Amino acid sequence: MDATRDWDDDKPHEECGVFGVWNGGDAAALTALGLHALQHRGQEAAGIVTLDEKGLFHAHKGLGLVGDNFGEAKIIASLRGGAAVGHNRYATTGETALRNVQPLYADFEFGGFAVAHNGNLTNANALKRALVRRGCLFQSTTDSEVFVHLIAISLYSTVLDRLIDALKQVQGAYSLVALHNGALIGARDPIGVRPLVLGRLANGGWVLASETCALDIVSAEFVRDIEAGEIVIIDDSGVRSVKPFGRNDSRFCIFEYIYFARPDSVMEGKPVYETRKRIGAELARESGVPADVVVPVPDSGVPSAMGYAAEAGIPFELGIIRNHYVGRTFIEPTDQIRHLGVKLKHSANRPMLEGKRVILVDDSIVRGTTSRKIVEMVRQAGAKEVHMRISSPPTTHSCYYGIDTPERSQLMAAKHDVAEMARIIGADSLAFISLDGLYRALGRPARDPAKPDFCDACFTGDYVIPLTDWEDNADRQLSLLQPAGE
Amino acid sequence: MDATRDWDDDKPHEECGVFGVWNGGDAAALTALGLHALQHRGQEAAGIVTLDEKGLFHAHKGLGLVGDNFGEAKIIASLRGGAAVGHNRYATTGETALRNVQPLYADFEFGGFAVAHNGNLTNANALKRALVRRGCLFQSTTDSEVFVHLIAISLYSTVLDRLIDALKQVQGAYSLVALHNGALIGARDPIGVRPLVLGRLANGGWVLASETCALDIVSAEFVRDIEAGEIVIIDDSGVRSVKPFGRNDSRFCIFEYIYFARPDSVMEGKPVYETRKRIGAELARESGVPADVVVPVPDSGVPSAMGYAAEAGIPFELGIIRNHYVGRTFIEPTDQIRHLGVKLKHSANRPMLEGKRVILVDDSIVRGTTSRKIVEMVRQAGAKEVHMRISSPPTTHSCYYGIDTPERSQLMAAKHDVAEMARIIGADSLAFISLDGLYRALGRPARDPAKPDFCDACFTGDYVIPLTDWEDNADRQLSLLQPAGE
Amino acid sequence: MDATRDWDDDKPHEECGVFGVWNGGDAAALTALGLHALQHRGQEAAGIVTLDEKGLFHAHKGLGLVGDNFGEAKIIASLRGGAAVGHNRYATTGETALRNVQPLYADFEFGGFAVAHNGNLTNANALKRALVRRGCLFQSTTDSEVFVHLIAISLYSTVLDRLIDALKQVQGAYSLVALHNGALIGARDPIGVRPLVLGRLANGGWVLASETCALDIVSAEFVRDIEAGEIVIIDDSGVRSVKPFGRNDSRFCIFEYIYFARPDSVMEGKPVYETRKRIGAELARESGVPADVVVPVPDSGVPSAMGYAAEAGIPFELGIIRNHYVGRTFIEPTDQIRHLGVKLKHSANRPMLEGKRVILVDDSIVRGTTSRKIVEMVRQAGAKEVHMRISSPPTTHSCYYGIDTPERSQLMAAKHDVAEMARIIGADSLAFISLDGLYRALGRPARDPAKPDFCDACFTGDYVIPLTDWEDNADRQLSLLQPAGE
Amino acid sequence: MDATRDWDDDKPHEECGVFGVWNGGDAAALTALGLHALQHRGQEAAGIVTLDEKGLFHAHKGLGLVGDNFGEAKIIASLRGGAAVGHNRYATTGETALRNVQPLYADFEFGGFAVAHNGNLTNANALKRALVRRGCLFQSTTDSEVFVHLIAISLYSTVLDRLIDALKQVQGAYSLVALHNGALIGARDPIGVRPLVLGRLANGGWVLASETCALDIVSAEFVRDIEAGEIVIIDDSGVRSVKPFGRNDSRFCIFEYIYFARPDSVMEGKPVYETRKRIGAELARESGVPADVVVPVPDSGVPSAMGYAAEAGIPFELGIIRNHYVGRTFIEPTDQIRHLGVKLKHSANRPMLEGKRVILVDDSIVRGTTSRKIVEMVRQAGAKEVHMRISSPPTTHSCYYGIDTPERSQLMAAKHDVAEMARIIGADSLAFISLDGLYRALGRPARDPAKPDFCDACFTGDYVIPLTDWEDNADRQLSLLQPAGE
Repeated sequence: MDATRDWDDDKPHEECGVFGVWNGGDAAALTALGLHALQHRGQEAAGIVTLDEKGLFHAHKGLGLVGDNFGEAKIIASLRGGAAVGHNRYATTGETALRNVQPLYADFEFGGFAVAHNGNLTNANALKRALVRRGCLFQSTTDSEVFVHLIAISLYSTVLDRLIDALKQVQGAYSLVALHNGALIGARDPIGVRPLVLGRLANGGWVLASETCALDIVSAEFVRDIEAGEIVIIDDSGVRSVKPFGRNDSRFCIFEYIYFARPDSVMEGKPVYETRKRIGAELARESGVPADVVVPVPDSGVPSAMGYAAEAGIPFELGIIRNHYVGRTFIEPTDQIRHLGVKLKHSANRPMLEGKRVILVDDSIVRGTTSRKIVEMVRQAGAKEVHMRISSPPTTHSCYYGIDTPERSQLMAAKHDVAEMARIIGADSLAFISLDGLYRALGRPARDPAKPDFCDACFTGDYVIPLTDWEDNADRQLSLLQPAGE
Repeated sequence: MDATRDWDDDKPHEECGVFGVWNGGDAAALTALGLHALQHRGQEAAGIVTLDEKGLFHAHKGLGLVGDNFGEAKIIASLRGGAAVGHNRYATTGETALRNVQPLYADFEFGGFAVAHNGNLTNANALKRALVRRGCLFQSTTDSEVFVHLIAISLYSTVLDRLIDALKQVQGAYSLVALHNGALIGARDPIGVRPLVLGRLANGGWVLASETCALDIVSAEFVRDIEAGEIVIIDDSGVRSVKPFGRNDSRFCIFEYIYFARPDSVMEGKPVYETRKRIGAELARESGVPADVVVPVPDSGVPSAMGYAAEAGIPFELGIIRNHYVGRTFIEPTDQIRHLGVKLKHSANRPMLEGKRVILVDDSIVRGTTSRKIVEMVRQAGAKEVHMRISSPPTTHSCYYGIDTPERSQLMAAKHDVAEMARIIGADSLAFISLDGLYRALGRPARDPAKPDFCDACFTGDYVIPLTDWEDNADRQLSLLQPAGE
Repeated sequence: MDATRDWDDDKPHEECGVFGVWNGGDAAALTALGLHALQHRGQEAAGIVTLDEKGLFHAHKGLGLVGDNFGEAKIIASLRGGAAVGHNRYATTGETALRNVQPLYADFEFGGFAVAHNGNLTNANALKRALVRRGCLFQSTTDSEVFVHLIAISLYSTVLDRLIDALKQVQGAYSLVALHNGALIGARDPIGVRPLVLGRLANGGWVLASETCALDIVSAEFVRDIEAGEIVIIDDSGVRSVKPFGRNDSRFCIFEYIYFARPDSVMEGKPVYETRKRIGAELARESGVPADVVVPVPDSGVPSAMGYAAEAGIPFELGIIRNHYVGRTFIEPTDQIRHLGVKLKHSANRPMLEGKRVILVDDSIVRGTTSRKIVEMVRQAGAKEVHMRISSPPTTHSCYYGIDTPERSQLMAAKHDVAEMARIIGADSLAFISLDGLYRALGRPARDPAKPDFCDACFTGDYVIPLTDWEDNADRQLSLLQPAGE
Repeated sequence: MDATRDWDDDKPHEECGVFGVWNGGDAAALTALGLHALQHRGQEAAGIVTLDEKGLFHAHKGLGLVGDNFGEAKIIASLRGGAAVGHNRYATTGETALRNVQPLYADFEFGGFAVAHNGNLTNANALKRALVRRGCLFQSTTDSEVFVHLIAISLYSTVLDRLIDALKQVQGAYSLVALHNGALIGARDPIGVRPLVLGRLANGGWVLASETCALDIVSAEFVRDIEAGEIVIIDDSGVRSVKPFGRNDSRFCIFEYIYFARPDSVMEGKPVYETRKRIGAELARESGVPADVVVPVPDSGVPSAMGYAAEAGIPFELGIIRNHYVGRTFIEPTDQIRHLGVKLKHSANRPMLEGKRVILVDDSIVRGTTSRKIVEMVRQAGAKEVHMRISSPPTTHSCYYGIDTPERSQLMAAKHDVAEMARIIGADSLAFISLDGLYRALGRPARDPAKPDFCDACFTGDYVIPLTDWEDNADRQLSLLQPAGE
């Protein structure tokens, strides 16, 4: 099993990973490693801004993987300083222009400031229009630049007060790391949709990261999750905490457990791998079916398939093999090839499937296109029956809180009931875990509709953060400028 | 699980994969797909030569993956014709110059000729010296060019007779595919060390490939393995077979089952995935140890770990996560980072390992460097005990038959007994499967020393093909020319 | 002769060329051609922004030559629209980051706005500090962004009023072209230091360009020079002129005639090529010397050498040959090679120089390094005497008005008198044209110190536009951010 | 003026430049410089092979300019040794594959051998067919490989005897430099069509080069021209000369004087620049016409225009300006732009041409396409009359001796008389220098038809070397292999 989920057309995509270091020694190298461990959260671009002891900032950004951009020793060496913030980006707009790569940097009156965020603002457009009206110039099309302008025009004097001023104006889901001459800052939105954890280096330095797997790679000790609505200010005197939004009920993204997070991370106290196995077991209890083998759709379906198999007492087998050598460009099929229905990334382990009743376990169905191909491939390899089991409830709604999902009209579960979906993907049976079953696997008795413990809007449409930019019918076009030749 | 084993410093490397098509329609596209499925056999370069109906040949080669070189539709389109041969290359010499990329092509008196081979000649140097003495000019440093010159100077008149003339002069292990105006040709060395299979396309065309997984991707039906010492000549009248070497006992490479072949391939009648599980089970029977979890070293250790776990009745868990997003260049560690002992490709699934007695299952130990790091990583994640189990016998000898292994002096098992090895890699215990156990897992009662069924020289030193170039103390330097700037 | 003066270390460099089109048909293609004709004014980067009939802007920018960036038909095709502005850039700071490439674009409340300028602001830093204080964020380190922010925060409502508001705040030398949904705008600074001309296309469209050679390449008819302090607003109703600064005496850059402008351009009514010949003739009258041949330092010295030779009655000969095939990177000399004093771009035409008394004619001496090498090369080729004649007065002061000159401390003429300079460069004699002689060649009786007709600060130190940023001892560092790996 | 004639569609192209060093110190650096000075003889590829004191050869080759391929110090440093041969290539076939880039290298029984040549064999195809028949494999499609095979299969024992054996079998025009462990070798074909000169370095080392300008750049003293049919063998004992072909009348290529050679070179005792001026003067005497200005077509027409103007007593003016900033790709014209007849490389110096009677001087007319554009451009700039004068006789025949000319059917002068040509190119009058006039300018009383002093086949069709490959109706296709994607 592995942590790869690259370029998969029919999966939701996490938008970003963030990492920050204070007093870390080789801060750029640590940040490059941390971003490497968070590579599954965004593969389109990576950036690091460091701060040296003279108060100068050093930046490097590029399109592509962390290793592609930070693989040269001279790049790391030129990113001087013991503090840094870094960012992996998955582009939500399709525009991968370099000017949109984070961290964003700005020269303020009070000095330099760099910020990187994971998440999505839901009133970015409204704020942007107001800011442009008062003379602000936008250079990128990222939501993140809104933060920077709000800080720039804030009438408060300290950086922290300006940041709080800015955060109080934005709506949305975000975890951010920021760096200025006096401190490293971390912040989570009031209900804590996106993750952010605090760790400590052996040398006493501090680390902020989207997931614990990024602490592990730099041998940082996990200290705690940053809380919903909390701002932490890290400087040489230690970690200070501020909660400017008062008390909120936390609603962490439930999909992080199902799919996004790396299996070796621990989120809000729960190991992700173990949790996925529990979801699989719950799924087996809810919708068991007689079969000969349980086969995961690799790689993300593996742990839930293992949980399913163990609970159902049916052998777990690797009936689908994944090929990771895909290269930069994809082989374009000719007409003849297209008829073959070639799958470049998956192949059926024919001897394992022939004549068998197969339970396929996957984590989600978005458009359904990949599921149909997988079922067809398994049947062509000789499976007698194909039963699809999904370790999440039907994805009926889009995410506006930092996950790239198709529009609702393209979500299979928004248009079809389960029976129709089974027919469309060609499975003999199809079942999703129930919402309550999912909450049970997460240790709750059931979902409390009055006060759910997680953000589950993609399954329920329960959008707890207002969708201002969509409600006022604003188009989301953020610039009249169209880059040529892309 | 997946089929990736890229750039792993401490594994043997398969040298090549070959693919050929006759009467295949879009032969170039089919070959690109077939090579993609064989990518695990060589990632450094790829090449395709096609033959069109006018008798013209078309070639394209490049360093890197198949997808990198054949991803553009215009490249595929310019490779006209219904017949093709293709090759994936893993460079054994470190020199990746384009002139060495196969298939090799030559204009002969009788027309054009292209050839690609998987394997290694053991008298290439001796032959080359003789050829140069009679005025032959060598343009590459590959063994394969020896074939071409021998064909060129043969006094026989037909292409087939010239090829047989050439094959009778070479020693070594090889499976080759060749293409000339009249036919596609496939050949295996007299004892069939390297694999080669025959398949049939739905349109009636024929395919030759190193493994069955390359038949699957183009929906070709498996017909049969080419036999040891067999030459097949494929033209519009069908498949003709010639056996110029008389009868030989086949000795297929046993390491293909252990590590090289893709798990979804079937080799000489045995499914690779199933075989690996059987090896794991045999290993559990031979060297069981009380433990809490069985953890594979991903990705190649997964099936044998599953077999081990099932036989031992100990839970199988994904305690090590693999990161495939490595990028083109590697992050170079600073001194500080080096002390962290960072693993960029593997990470410990800490919650799964903490406080546990862990059995790690891997397929082989070559130098031992990776094993030591893996054991250390598992311990740092909190494992109480670490027991290493290896699904092959100790690798005590180098391979000269087409697998890139270090010199004997660098093979851990050539210098140390098992107890010492356990100490060096830091494991609480270490065990390898026995040679007889391995043969049992492959369906034999035991290894028959008088007439072993497989080539197992890497475990036994039983080199059945003469090592001429090494015996006569010849240096293997094949040219006085040194490319600059590499 | 040709228009090449690339990467010549010891020449002043023009900073930029600008081009604009309104109602031009294929505006992007016309602009690419215009910029190509202006390539001598800047070779480090090129950019074009177009405006289509839907009000959308399209941009493409890149480092390198116009042909490198706009050579693909698909790029030109994607730059839709009949109006455009474009820019060639020579980087004055050494930082060639893409974010600094012009035209700059901004989304304003009133719509999109693109601007490109040639010149240099002398109070950019002071303005920038004030703008940052009030919350403006700067994304580039170019002076040009100051224009954009001043427009953005202006309290006036129309684009034109905002632009005038901005221009009244800046000091410096500039010619700019700007594009918004309603019009193409051109402007020259109050004393008209940098050039800007208006032309008309055959189809009735309008063109603005730095030089007339850019009108010629698109077959536009020359209409007139934009006047000092004039703003022209070009829309479908025609060309409107505004002069917001009242009446100023024009002081056009005299160095454009001597060196910068292309010889086939006509500037402020005077053909450049003819003017250079007249300067050469004046130089011959002022400082004749007996000699056998007059040899230009190619390519810029050719016309003045022709004028000199004709006036002096001495044969004009091509005694120095220029090699333009220099490649992207330069051959780095070894120690042995360094001793040879190799000149990669010039070679002596030995048969033409041997035994001769040679008059070398060049346009200027900046540091003197190239002059010394040229004199040495001519002597090594056998010249009996070498007399250097320069078609400009001694360059004693730096330019702050848009020309990249070394600091004063590096200007040879700022530290040495003419006799010393002759000795340093190794010439038998050295003479510069006098300031009055230069004015005479330009059709004036002499320089009127009370009211000179040209900006000649580089020869006189008479800086007519205040040097605010240098006077207040401000450092010119415009950002705390240091790009890594450059 | 300069030495640039890059990518000019309507000029003949020299095929190659060669350079060799023995005992030169930094031989690779010297060779890179020498090839840089010879860049005008070939811009498509460059290669250097060096020989170090251990007898190892080092090679680097690449497509593009010398500076592009040999600009990095590490490349030069890795090309160890005091002896070298180098080559600039202009591809005659359009195929620029790296495998065709010279010098060619081969491992022979007697050691390594590298060879580079300028010229063209006229029986290469016949020889190649014979060589393939006896089992030789060809890896490139260059004539040069024929040399290498002939040497490889020669029955003589010494390298020199093998080389002579090979040279006696080939027909054609060539100047070659070769390097083996014992010596640097230079050779010219029996009638000396292509140039080759010998020079001496200050440190006592020796240099061979196509032109004297390459001696100048490395400060080598000109020793002498290699003679027609001469082989020189240079080793530590000095220079030895062999003349295996007996006595032949030399017939040096007359077009080297007219166009190919750099103006600062001296060929067979005659300075090229001076010679071109004499040709221009002769042309003025032969075909004077009343006019106001003499204008060269830059850059190659400059010296003959100067000679013409001086002889005619008409002012010489730079009426056409050349733009050398063309970039890697060319701006593709849209339809609108095409109608403008845009010239990216030349522009009219309008103020110099308007209302004038203009004599344009160029060196040759091949297809006539460029001439027509130039005449049109000069007329559009306002010229009252345009008279074209050409400093060579009409080019009526193709060259088979190392110059890339179009097929005869495309040569304007092969199909039209001078009056028609004048009409086609749109000139008021057109005149070529006479053949006798050209010989007079070269110091002969006239052309002696019985025994001409030069190869003038392109003007006369007098092909003194047999055209074997064309006579036997052989197609010149040298391989069935077609590279894809080019």
